[in-house]
Amino acid sequence: MGNPLLNDRNVDFLLYEVIDVDRRLGKLPVFADHGRQVYDLFLAGARRLARDVLAPSYRAMDAEPPRLVDGHVKVHPRLREIYPQLVALGLTSATRPPGVGGQQLPMAVSALGSAYLMAGNLSAVGYVGLTASAAHLLEAFGSDALRERFMTRMYAGEWTGTMALTEPQAGSSLADVTTRATPTRHGYHMITGSKIFISGGDHDLTDNIVQMTLARLDGAPEGIKGVSLFAVPARRFADDGSGALVDNDVTTAGLVHKIGWRGLPSVILNYGERGDCRGWLVGQEHQGIRYMFQMMNEARIMVGMNGVATASAAYLESLGYARTRTQGRPLGARASGPQVPIVEHPDVRRMLLRQKAIVEGGLALLATTALHADLAVYSLDDAERSRSQLLVDLLTPVAKSFPAEWGFESNALAVQIHGGYGYTSEYPVEAWLRDQKLNSLHEGTTGIQSLDLLGRKIGADGGRAFGIFLDEVGATLGRARSAGAGGDLCDAMQDALGVLNSTLETLAARGLEGDVAGMLLHSADFLALFSIITIAWQWLLQAAVAAEAIMHDAIPRDFYAGKLAAARYWITTELPRASVHAALCKSGERSFADMRNEWF
Amino acid sequence: MGNPLLNDRNVDFLLYEVIDVDRRLGKLPVFADHGRQVYDLFLAGARRLARDVLAPSYRAMDAEPPRLVDGHVKVHPRLREIYPQLVALGLTSATRPPGVGGQQLPMAVSALGSAYLMAGNLSAVGYVGLTASAAHLLEAFGSDALRERFMTRMYAGEWTGTMALTEPQAGSSLADVTTRATPTRHGYHMITGSKIFISGGDHDLTDNIVQMTLARLDGAPEGIKGVSLFAVPARRFADDGSGALVDNDVTTAGLVHKIGWRGLPSVILNYGERGDCRGWLVGQEHQGIRYMFQMMNEARIMVGMNGVATASAAYLESLGYARTRTQGRPLGARASGPQVPIVEHPDVRRMLLRQKAIVEGGLALLATTALHADLAVYSLDDAERSRSQLLVDLLTPVAKSFPAEWGFESNALAVQIHGGYGYTSEYPVEAWLRDQKLNSLHEGTTGIQSLDLLGRKIGADGGRAFGIFLDEVGATLGRARSAGAGGDLCDAMQDALGVLNSTLETLAARGLEGDVAGMLLHSADFLALFSIITIAWQWLLQAAVAAEAIMHDAIPRDFYAGKLAAARYWITTELPRASVHAALCKSGERSFADMRNEWF
Repeated sequence: MGNPLLNDRNVDFLLYEVIDVDRRLGKLPVFADHGRQVYDLFLAGARRLARDVLAPSYRAMDAEPPRLVDGHVKVHPRLREIYPQLVALGLTSATRPPGVGGQQLPMAVSALGSAYLMAGNLSAVGYVGLTASAAHLLEAFGSDALRERFMTRMYAGEWTGTMALTEPQAGSSLADVTTRATPTRHGYHMITGSKIFISGGDHDLTDNIVQMTLARLDGAPEGIKGVSLFAVPARRFADDGSGALVDNDVTTAGLVHKIGWRGLPSVILNYGERGDCRGWLVGQEHQGIRYMFQMMNEARIMVGMNGVATASAAYLESLGYARTRTQGRPLGARASGPQVPIVEHPDVRRMLLRQKAIVEGGLALLATTALHADLAVYSLDDAERSRSQLLVDLLTPVAKSFPAEWGFESNALAVQIHGGYGYTSEYPVEAWLRDQKLNSLHEGTTGIQSLDLLGRKIGADGGRAFGIFLDEVGATLGRARSAGAGGDLCDAMQDALGVLNSTLETLAARGLEGDVAGMLLHSADFLALFSIITIAWQWLLQAAVAAEAIMHDAIPRDFYAGKLAAARYWITTELPRASVHAALCKSGERSFADMRNEWF
Repeated sequence: MGNPLLNDRNVDFLLYEVIDVDRRLGKLPVFADHGRQVYDLFLAGARRLARDVLAPSYRAMDAEPPRLVDGHVKVHPRLREIYPQLVALGLTSATRPPGVGGQQLPMAVSALGSAYLMAGNLSAVGYVGLTASAAHLLEAFGSDALRERFMTRMYAGEWTGTMALTEPQAGSSLADVTTRATPTRHGYHMITGSKIFISGGDHDLTDNIVQMTLARLDGAPEGIKGVSLFAVPARRFADDGSGALVDNDVTTAGLVHKIGWRGLPSVILNYGERGDCRGWLVGQEHQGIRYMFQMMNEARIMVGMNGVATASAAYLESLGYARTRTQGRPLGARASGPQVPIVEHPDVRRMLLRQKAIVEGGLALLATTALHADLAVYSLDDAERSRSQLLVDLLTPVAKSFPAEWGFESNALAVQIHGGYGYTSEYPVEAWLRDQKLNSLHEGTTGIQSLDLLGRKIGADGGRAFGIFLDEVGATLGRARSAGAGGDLCDAMQDALGVLNSTLETLAARGLEGDVAGMLLHSADFLALFSIITIAWQWLLQAAVAAEAIMHDAIPRDFYAGKLAAARYWITTELPRASVHAALCKSGERSFADMRNEWF
C-alpha cells in the first residue's frame, strides 16, 4: 500500500473520541441535519481524492513549477483535472452556510478532511483554500452587490481569489503598505501599486482572479489605521453591460521561485500600470487590517494544518521505509545473522516516535482549535461562544507555529531515517522538508506569532483567556487521573503548569512596571514554552481517552497502546524542555538584548 | 562588499590567539620552516580563491548539476577553471610532507584555509578533498609500487580519488559489503560488485579516478573482519607497457540526484560488468575497515568543517541582510517614523547571535581538534602525542555532528531572517540549507556518531580520554576565572561538568552491570549533552582570550565584546539544555525503547 498521508484511525479517534464532535456540536441547530454519516462521507471523499488524484500528481507538479509565458502564468496541466474535483468536493465553501452555496460542515470536520488533501498536494489545495478565504472576507464585510458579483462566483469555484497584503518594501509590516486607492464618482477606486508573494495571484485555471488587496486611500492616516480592503479583479465586467470580461490592468510583473509549494505560483503584481485598474472597497474605509485580522485565525489555523499534513505525509513515509528497509543488526547479534528492518534500531524508533508525537499532537491541537472555532460562532450559549473565541485566539499562534517549527524538525528526521536516499530527489521526503519551511514564514512569521501570543493573546480580556486555558487543561488532568493514564505524567503536567504560571506572573509584573520590551524580550522562549505545554495537554487528553478505551476493551488495542506511548514520550522527553525556556523568560537573560550591531 | 564567507578577524583570532598555533606547533621540528608568514600566505590564497573564483561559481553549479551523457558524467564547465586552481593552492596535499609533494602545513592551518573554500563552493572542494583522503590511504598503507603508480599522481592532482564504501543493500552497515575480489597470479585482483553514493565517482575533469574500494576476498570471514581495501582505477595502464590508459571496466550505472552539494556528482558504480575490472590490494588482507577508520577522524573533521563553513556563509549572508533590510519599527515608535534595519529587532538579533554562537563555537572546536590532530602526529613528546590522539578521538564525533545538526538549525534561521525572500531561489540561503543536510548523513550518520562517542570514545583507554577532556576544560575554567571572563559563566560551566560526570557514572554503572543496550539507549541525548558542553568549553575559552585581550587594550574592541556576548549567549541560553538531556540519560527513559512496531 502507498503512503496513506494521514492515519484514518487517528483522524476518527480525534474527531469522534477526543473532540467528540457529535456530542459537542451535534446538539447545535446549525448542524442538526448533520452527524457522523455526513462527516464520514466528506472524509471518505477527501481521502479518495487525496490518495487517488492529488498525491499521484504531487511530484510532477513539484518538478515543473508554473511558468511565465507572454506575461501570464501557466500552471501544471494536471491542475486542470484536480481543481474541478476539489471544487466538486465543496472545498471552497465547506464550512459556509447553504445560503451562500456551502455545506455548513463544522470547521473541525472540514479541516481534518482538508488535511488529507494538503498532505497529498498542498499546492493544489492552495488555490481553493485562498479562494475560500477571499470569498469569506466578502461574505463577512462586503456589500450585497460585491457579494453577488464576486463572492458567489468564488464559492462556486468559477473564479479564484487571493490575499494581496505583502509589498516589497514592507513585508510583515502592514503599516507600511503604500498601494494607493483613489476614489472615483463611479463607485470604485483606481488602484496603483505593487504586491509581492501573492500565492495564486496569476494562473490559467479560471477566467478571473479576485485579489483581496490592502491599499491606502488618498489622504488616509498613517500606519495600520489608514489601510483599507479592496476587491481587485484581474478582469472586470465591461462597462457596456454585456457581461464580457475585460482586462483590469493587473499585471504579472514576475514570478518568485519558491523552494517548496512549487505547484502554486507566487506572483509579483503591479496594479494600474496603464492607470486603468479598478478596485471595489470592501466594507468601510480604513478598516482593512481589522477585517483581515478577523479572518486571520482561520488562515493561520489552515497554515498549521498544512504544517501538520506535510509532517504527517513525511512521518508515514519514513515509517513505511523503516519497516521495510533492512540494514544492520541488533546490538550483540552475530555478524552472520540477517540484517533487520531499521525500525528495530532504538534510535530509529526514537526518531519515528518523535515524529508521531509531533504529528499527532499537532493534529489534536488543530482539531481542538477548530472545534472551539465552531463553538465560538455557532454555540447557542453566549458564555460558551465568548469562552471558545478567547480560547481560539489564544491557541491560534501555537496552532500556526508549532507545526511549522516542530514539523520542520520532524520532516528533517524523515530525511534522516531514509539515510542517503532521503537526501535525493528520488525519494519524496526532501520535498516535504522544503514545503514545510514556508509555514514558519507566511501568514505571520514565528517571531510575529510569539509577539501575538505574549503581547496580546495571553492577557486577553484581563487574563480570562489564560484562565480558560488553565480550566481546560485542569479538566484534562482530572480525566487523565481518573482514567489511570499515568500518574507520573499527570504530575509532570501539573508541575509544568506551575512553571507556566510563575513565568507569567514574572512577565506580567515586568509589563505592569512599564518594561514592555523586557516582558516581550524572550517571546520566542515563551512561545516555545507554551507550545510544549499545550501539546503536552493534547497528549494527556489523548492518553486519557486511550486509557478509557483500553478499560472498555476497545479495539484495536495496538492503536491505543501507541497513543499511551507517544504521550509518555512527549511528557517525559519534550516537556522538561519547557523549564529551560521558562528560566530564560523569568531571568530576562540579556545577551541578545545587549548585543550591538557592530559586535557581530 | 559581498559575503566574506568567513570572518577573517575570527579566523586569525582562533589560529593565533585561541589555539595559538605558533606557540603550540612552532617549536616542533616538522614545522620549523613555517610560521605565521607561511600560514598567512596560505590563508590569503584560500581567501582570494574562495571569494574571487569559487563563490561566484557556486550558484551556477547548484543550478546545473552534473549530467550523465553516453554513460559518462559531465560536470559543470566552470570546474575546469576551478579545479586546477585548487590543486595549485596545494589543497590535495597541504598537510602532507614534502617527500610526497606536500607543504607540511599544520592541519589546523590547512583546515581553516579550506573552510573558506568550502564556504565558497563546497562541491568544488569535494573533488580535491576526496582525492587527498584517498591518496593519504595509499601513503599510509600502500606498497611503494602503489604509491608510485597512484598516490603521486593523486597528490599532484593529475588524477582524482574517491572513497567507495557504501553499497545499496548495506548503507552504514559496512559489515555487509558484498563487492568481491578474486585473486589472480598477476598481483592484482578481479573486482565485481556495485557501490552507491560515490561522490566524484565519475567526472570529466581528469584522465583517471582511483576508487578506494572496500571489497571482500573470496573466502574471507564474515562481517567487518573480512573486508579488504583495494585501489580500483577507472582506467589502468595497458599491459603492453606503453603507459597508455585503457578502460578498467568500472561502469557508471547512474547518478543519484542529491538535493545539495549539486556540483559534485554522486555516482552508482558497477565493477566488472565485463569481468575485466582489476583492483590492487592496499596493505594486508582483511584490514580494510581498520585502514578506513584510521583515516576516519580526518574525514569526519572535514565534514564538520564543511558544516561550519556552510553555516558561516549563511550566517554572514543573513547578517548582511539584517543590517540593510529595513522593515518595521522599534516597540513603541511612532508609525510615521522611518522603518529600521531588522537587526534592530530583538528577535532578529537573537537569531543572529544564535547563528554566531553555533558558527564560531563550531569553528573553535574544529580548530582545537585539528591542533590536537597535529600534536598527535608530530609532537616529540610521547605522552603528548598519546594524549592528543585520545582527545581527537573523543572530540571527533562532536566535531562531525555538531556542525551538521546545529548548523542545520542555524541555516534555517538564516532563511527565517530573510523572510519570504529566504524561501526563494533568488537568494542563496536556501541552497546552504539544502547543502547542510548532507552533513548529518555522510561519513557516519549522527546516530552512528552518538554510538561511537558513548560506546567507544568516552571510555577509551579506561576513561583516560574523558579525563584528558576534563583537564582541558578545567584549565580553561581557571584561565577564564583569572581573566574575569564572567564568574557566573564559569559557575554554570562547573555545574554542567558536574552533571556530565554524574551522568557518565550512571551510564558506566549500567554498562558494567551488563546492560549495554540500556547504557546506549539515550546515546542521542548523550551526544547532545556532550556537544552542548563541549561548545560551552570552546566559548569559555574564547571568552577568556577575549577578556585578556580587552585587559591589554587589544583592538578591535568590538570584536572582543562580540566574543564575550556570544559566550554569554551560549552558556546562559543553550547550556541549560544539557540538563534535560542528562536527565533522560540517567533515568533511561523507555518510551521509544518499549515502543512496538505495531503501535505506530
